[in-house]
Amino acid sequence: MTYCLGILLQDGLVMASDSRSNAGVDDITKVRKMAIFEQSEERLIVVLSAGNLATTQAVVTTLRENLNCGDEARDLFAVKTMFHAAQVVGDLLRQILARESDFVRPYGDPGGSFLVGGQLAGENHRLFQVYAAGNFVEASPRSQMLQIGEAKYGKPVLDRGLSNEVSLDEAAKLALLSYDATIRSNLSVDGPIDLLRYKKGSLTARNRQKFSRYDPYWIDLREKYGEGLLSLVRGLPVPPTDAEKQGATPIRDAG
Amino acid sequence: MTYCLGILLQDGLVMASDSRSNAGVDDITKVRKMAIFEQSEERLIVVLSAGNLATTQAVVTTLRENLNCGDEARDLFAVKTMFHAAQVVGDLLRQILARESDFVRPYGDPGGSFLVGGQLAGENHRLFQVYAAGNFVEASPRSQMLQIGEAKYGKPVLDRGLSNEVSLDEAAKLALLSYDATIRSNLSVDGPIDLLRYKKGSLTARNRQKFSRYDPYWIDLREKYGEGLLSLVRGLPVPPTDAEKQGATPIRDAG
Repeated sequence: MTYCLGILLQDGLVMASDSRSNAGVDDITKVRKMAIFEQSEERLIVVLSAGNLATTQAVVTTLRENLNCGDEARDLFAVKTMFHAAQVVGDLLRQILARESDFVRPYGDPGGSFLVGGQLAGENHRLFQVYAAGNFVEASPRSQMLQIGEAKYGKPVLDRGLSNEVSLDEAAKLALLSYDATIRSNLSVDGPIDLLRYKKGSLTARNRQKFSRYDPYWIDLREKYGEGLLSLVRGLPVPPTDAEKQGATPIRDAG
Repeated sequence: MTYCLGILLQDGLVMASDSRSNAGVDDITKVRKMAIFEQSEERLIVVLSAGNLATTQAVVTTLRENLNCGDEARDLFAVKTMFHAAQVVGDLLRQILARESDFVRPYGDPGGSFLVGGQLAGENHRLFQVYAAGNFVEASPRSQMLQIGEAKYGKPVLDRGLSNEVSLDEAAKLALLSYDATIRSNLSVDGPIDLLRYKKGSLTARNRQKFSRYDPYWIDLREKYGEGLLSLVRGLPVPPTDAEKQGATPIRDAG
């Protein structure tokens, strides 16, 4: 499994990916699932991958091979909008699945999915989710968060904390807490986490970090969050008994 | 979908269930998924249900019909241990699936699963999960929490907060927060929540409450938790940039 996350904010984008790849629980390894396509002062396109590793690697490698070929239907450096960048990724996924699926399916799901985010000079920053079918949807202020892979464990903290006005730094914190929740509850997602804070208009991926399980900042964040959460929960009121709910004298037989 | 939760504690058990039943998103209704089998001073057995509603209702209704028949293989009031109570539930599920599956499968999954918890006089309080196959596992201090149905969204807060020493009241709070996380992130789970705090040795289900979405306590809990969490996150340190991680002068291009 995998967990990739993209967040659309007024100020820019936060994108993150984990590094675990596994073929069964006894065959695990680390891969980078964040691919950066950067053209100085011109465009930044980030592609996050989930699903069958052979399929998603074939897509990303071919995207790199096609750079500077000049064909708008294949070249991320030639596309005129982020919409067309997502289309290039979806079309390429379809081509690769057409070639691979019949051979791979007897062994497992050949499918993959992607988050495609970034900005081209002259356009707003945008974020898309490309489905295994090659079609795609775009994030918006009403649905500012896109997730692929093992998304459920990490969703509640984002649902509570995110809004369009949240800063890149606050969203980055929430993203790391979302990964922490996922990693604690599920073996199929693990660090290092690649994290990009993209400030709109910057057209660069330089504010990008890798957080391993032993990163001092991430350890500190996890500990402070864990302690803070426990202390918060301890301070919350205890559920009333039915007698209390009806206004009677409190009787509690729970310790 | 459904979300049912059972927690084994030194002091007793916390068991909870939601009330949403749906056949597609345009056909939703409320049902009670917590069935109580109580024999004064003798035994308390609680059965929580998830899965195909016709199947699980057939199991629970038949369990009620079989009470006091005296047959240890079918009667929850005749079984001598909680292990055998779980076996009665699993066997009955198999019987009902043998009768129903061929007819139901063309329309959807006929399966169901259960949490079976409680205590018989002379035995410790125990908690079991009965799978769709009718086999079952038991909770223990090392795996004190069992979930059926839509379990993922609500797992992180429990993973962080639970331990064997947690009191029934604290675990009940965590359970309600786990339901809140699930309900916020997923349409297929909804209140009212049935919540039982069972104190070991009490052999009664009287500390049992129903929390609707509009319950003043639950609204208060959700608001205080939501505000507390946001304020906790705001107070946590911001992720460093790579330059900062390497000890250089802080440069941050994220807003």
